[in-house]
Amino acid sequence: MPSRRRADPAPPTVSVLRLGHRAGRDPRLTTHLALAARALGADRLYLHPPDDALADRVRAVAKTWGGGFEVVGVSEWRRTVLEFPGPVVHLTMYGEPLARRLTAMRRARRLLLVVGGAKVPSEIYRTSTWNVAVGHQPHSEVAALAITLDRVRGLPGPGAWAGAERVVVPQSRGKKVAERRRRSAP
Amino acid sequence: MPSRRRADPAPPTVSVLRLGHRAGRDPRLTTHLALAARALGADRLYLHPPDDALADRVRAVAKTWGGGFEVVGVSEWRRTVLEFPGPVVHLTMYGEPLARRLTAMRRARRLLLVVGGAKVPSEIYRTSTWNVAVGHQPHSEVAALAITLDRVRGLPGPGAWAGAERVVVPQSRGKKVAERRRRSAP
Repeated sequence: MPSRRRADPAPPTVSVLRLGHRAGRDPRLTTHLALAARALGADRLYLHPPDDALADRVRAVAKTWGGGFEVVGVSEWRRTVLEFPGPVVHLTMYGEPLARRLTAMRRARRLLLVVGGAKVPSEIYRTSTWNVAVGHQPHSEVAALAITLDRVRGLPGPGAWAGAERVVVPQSRGKKVAERRRRSAP
Repeated sequence: MPSRRRADPAPPTVSVLRLGHRAGRDPRLTTHLALAARALGADRLYLHPPDDALADRVRAVAKTWGGGFEVVGVSEWRRTVLEFPGPVVHLTMYGEPLARRLTAMRRARRLLLVVGGAKVPSEIYRTSTWNVAVGHQPHSEVAALAITLDRVRGLPGPGAWAGAERVVVPQSRGKKVAERRRRSAP
């Protein structure tokens, strides 16, 4: 069941800000967060603090599978929040139910979704436009981000993304991947 | 927007099977997977191979926040799949679009959702009832599981779970948690 109707306006473009990344401890978790953001239609991940190795790994995936997703390291996350030209939505189990803000989120042209780890600066609760809970139990920023993107934008369908070298051909059994030749520069 | 209508029958009870857990490498990722499964309404996580330390950590969360979720270590995952009394749905980017199987999944009384890491035994593609893709891009088993649970069961609302010691009181700003006295045994 698609969660958006045909008559709906275009969904917002979404950026994600990940606060409090710990390069030594979180590499796989933040990689999952970045790949989920990309796969579910976000345009970019702002990563605080920056982590070049992680950005390179995600860039390699985007080169293979297409699309324009990017990881942007940010040293000053406050500026990213304060200067963002649209609603800033902090995902936290302590916030309001997602359903209460979903219509407004869908109507925005641009959204910034903010996710933290166990410890986020308390300031973000005040500077966000909304603090929104995806359920009110402790779970995972990857899960909260994924559900929010699905509810706001719906799931991307099958088919190659712009510039992709590879594309999945959906199967009821087994794996099928088609290689695509990239157009060479003119 | 709730994804289930009032007239729908009760949603299925859901178990999750996590294949190929690596206790040394995956502790945080599998913890996120287990907590997301619990927070989004699954009843249990079958974990292969077993990991007692992880099961203990999740049990501590369930003791504080309530509900009956459990982590069950399994040494022989094939038996879990073959003996499950309902559809077995393997989540993989190579499968059919989720939308194609969602109605059937919602009608089941019991569902087993199977998630693997980078390498899953190819056998699971044959022994599952369905292989289902939550988008067709590489991302995260935590994200795929979360979206599937949301689409099949909807998001749990606010309020204390059975036996909880603590409950979040949703706020538009800041954090509020209420402590609940547990009933002592008669």
